[in-house]
Amino acid sequence: MSRPRPVDRLIRALARLPGIGPKTSERLAYHVLRAEPELAQELVDAIAAARASTRVCSVCFNLDESDPCAICASPERDRALLLVVEDPRDVAAFDASGYRGLYHVLQGRLSTLEGIRVEDLTIAQLLARVGDGGFQEICLATNPDLEGEGTAEVLVERLRGRGARVTRIARGMPAGATIAQVSAAILADALQGRRELR
Amino acid sequence: MSRPRPVDRLIRALARLPGIGPKTSERLAYHVLRAEPELAQELVDAIAAARASTRVCSVCFNLDESDPCAICASPERDRALLLVVEDPRDVAAFDASGYRGLYHVLQGRLSTLEGIRVEDLTIAQLLARVGDGGFQEICLATNPDLEGEGTAEVLVERLRGRGARVTRIARGMPAGATIAQVSAAILADALQGRRELR
Repeated sequence: MSRPRPVDRLIRALARLPGIGPKTSERLAYHVLRAEPELAQELVDAIAAARASTRVCSVCFNLDESDPCAICASPERDRALLLVVEDPRDVAAFDASGYRGLYHVLQGRLSTLEGIRVEDLTIAQLLARVGDGGFQEICLATNPDLEGEGTAEVLVERLRGRGARVTRIARGMPAGATIAQVSAAILADALQGRRELR
Repeated sequence: MSRPRPVDRLIRALARLPGIGPKTSERLAYHVLRAEPELAQELVDAIAAARASTRVCSVCFNLDESDPCAICASPERDRALLLVVEDPRDVAAFDASGYRGLYHVLQGRLSTLEGIRVEDLTIAQLLARVGDGGFQEICLATNPDLEGEGTAEVLVERLRGRGARVTRIARGMPAGATIAQVSAAILADALQGRRELR
C-alpha cells in the first residue's frame, strides 16, 4: 500500500494543471483533504460554474458569460481602437489599467517551436473584423518576447493597407522598477525608445 | 468590466490552496476554462471522490478509504515497530521506501510561532497506543528542521520509561547528493553522525 486510490487520482488530476509538478500536486491534494470540507466544495462548485457559464465571444474571442461579450456589447467603449492580445488574461489586465477600446484575443502566439501557425490563432477573424472597417487604430499588444514580437511582425504585414493605423505597445522600463536591478534587455529598450522632452 | 464573475470566483477558490498566489491562480483558472472540458470534469470528480471516500484512521490518524486504515489492518506489517510522522504524505513516502512497520501520524508538528501545542496534535493518542504495549521500538520521523526536532524532543521525554526503545531517523548526506553542493548544516550532520567502518 502506498496511497489510497482516490488520493492518487486527485494528485494525478491536479498534476494536469500547468506548472503543477508531482510534489506540489501531492501537497495540494492532501490540503484539500485535510482542510474544512467547504474548501473542496467551493473548488468543485467554482470549477463547474466557471466551465458551465463562460463561453468564447464570437466577435473578439474573449471569455465571458455572454456572447458577444460585455466589452463588445458595451456602448461605452471606443469602437475606433482595437487592442490585439494573446490571451483572455491580457484583456483583464489591460482593462484594469484603464483601457477603454475594444479587444481581439488571438488565443495564443505564433511559435515554430510549438508548431502554432497562423491558422491556429484567430488571425483570419481579426483580418475580417478589420476589413469590415471602422477601426482607426489597431494596437498590437502581444508579449514583448521572441514569439510575441514575431507574431506582431506577421500581423503588421497582414494588416498593412487596410485603412487603420497599426501600432505596437511600448517597451521600456517597467513603472516602479530600479535601473540597477532590471535586465540589460530592458535598459536597451528604454534607451532605444527614448523620447524628447519639450 | 474586468473579469466575468464565475472566472473571478474560480480564481479566488484556487488561490485558497497553499502556495498558490493570485497570478498562479489566474493562470490555472484560465487553463481550466480553455482546456478540453474533460480536464475540469476530472478535477471536479477527483476532488469530490477523494473528499467523499477518504477518512482519518482512528488508530494511526493516516488518511485512507477504510478505518482502521489498510496499514493498521494488515497482518503483514511489523507490529513491534512504530514510525511517528507529521503528515499522511510522510506515510506514503516511507511506505514507498520499503518501510513495513506501523505508523502514527501526528497531524502536524509543535510550533510556538504558529501556536500549535501538544493538545493540537495526536500526541495523547500516541501515548495511549504506546501505553497499551506491544511496541519494541518507536522511531521519531518528524522533519529534520527546527520544529520537527523540537517536536521529537518533546516526544522523547513523554515516551521515556514506557517500555519501548525510542529512536530518531538519521540526519546526514542525502543519497545521490554532491558534497560540494549541499549546505553546511547537512555536512555538519554528516560528520557528527559518522560511523565506524569495520
